[in-house]
Amino acid sequence: MEKSLDCLYCQRNELQKSLMIEICDLRVSTLFLFKEQSYKGRCVVAYKDHVNELFELSDEERNLFMADVVKVAAAMKRTFSPVKINYGAYSDKLAHLHFHLVPKYENGLSFGGTFEMNPGKIYLSDEEYSQIIKELVSNL
Amino acid sequence: MEKSLDCLYCQRNELQKSLMIEICDLRVSTLFLFKEQSYKGRCVVAYKDHVNELFELSDEERNLFMADVVKVAAAMKRTFSPVKINYGAYSDKLAHLHFHLVPKYENGLSFGGTFEMNPGKIYLSDEEYSQIIKELVSNL
Repeated sequence: MEKSLDCLYCQRNELQKSLMIEICDLRVSTLFLFKEQSYKGRCVVAYKDHVNELFELSDEERNLFMADVVKVAAAMKRTFSPVKINYGAYSDKLAHLHFHLVPKYENGLSFGGTFEMNPGKIYLSDEEYSQIIKELVSNL
Repeated sequence: MEKSLDCLYCQRNELQKSLMIEICDLRVSTLFLFKEQSYKGRCVVAYKDHVNELFELSDEERNLFMADVVKVAAAMKRTFSPVKINYGAYSDKLAHLHFHLVPKYENGLSFGGTFEMNPGKIYLSDEEYSQIIKELVSNL
């Protein structure tokens, strides 16, 4: 499938690198750690191809993609022990299928509501990012 | 599976009826129209059982559930012609798996961002709800 020249998930450009850290490829997607960590352990799972809507995938493609999504969500639960994982796919202006996976904690930011797209508050050191990634990957 | 006594999706109680209108059962879920219609055509797809996290379902259950979700999303696209459908599953405090399906329109509320859980602004007449439901169901 064609890659889009102006899509950050297709190009893995500087904007993309400023927002997230690539962790690994999954079956039909790539896992990223979201750099803004107000919601500890927050990740993005992006589909391998430049597809806009979840309903554009075949049944088999969708099943594989959602298997990747829940694999990550379950690993987040085991690693960070949040009360709940939130799942959000928006991208009104960015036609590349991806889910934000956002752990929510009692007394944490936005608990009981939706989540902020980018609170812009909590960024970590390289060592701290590496530690979180290492723990998460060990639970995948 | 046990129904939860204090879950609005299990009980279909007055709180639930104040928020949404039951449209129909799908394969493993129930489709509701969200009464607040700032995002025209907005719906909820709730899993048939009181399950908290998407990753608690078996592969088969999850695949059937996501097939229901995309069936509705595709019908929303055909019926209301939004630019994009947003998918959100949060429920930090309500342990019953459901997705909010929210059509987004250019120059409409929250276009380019996430969506508000309940803007509390636009409610319709019974006739208008019926018309929207009729159109959506004809495209399912």
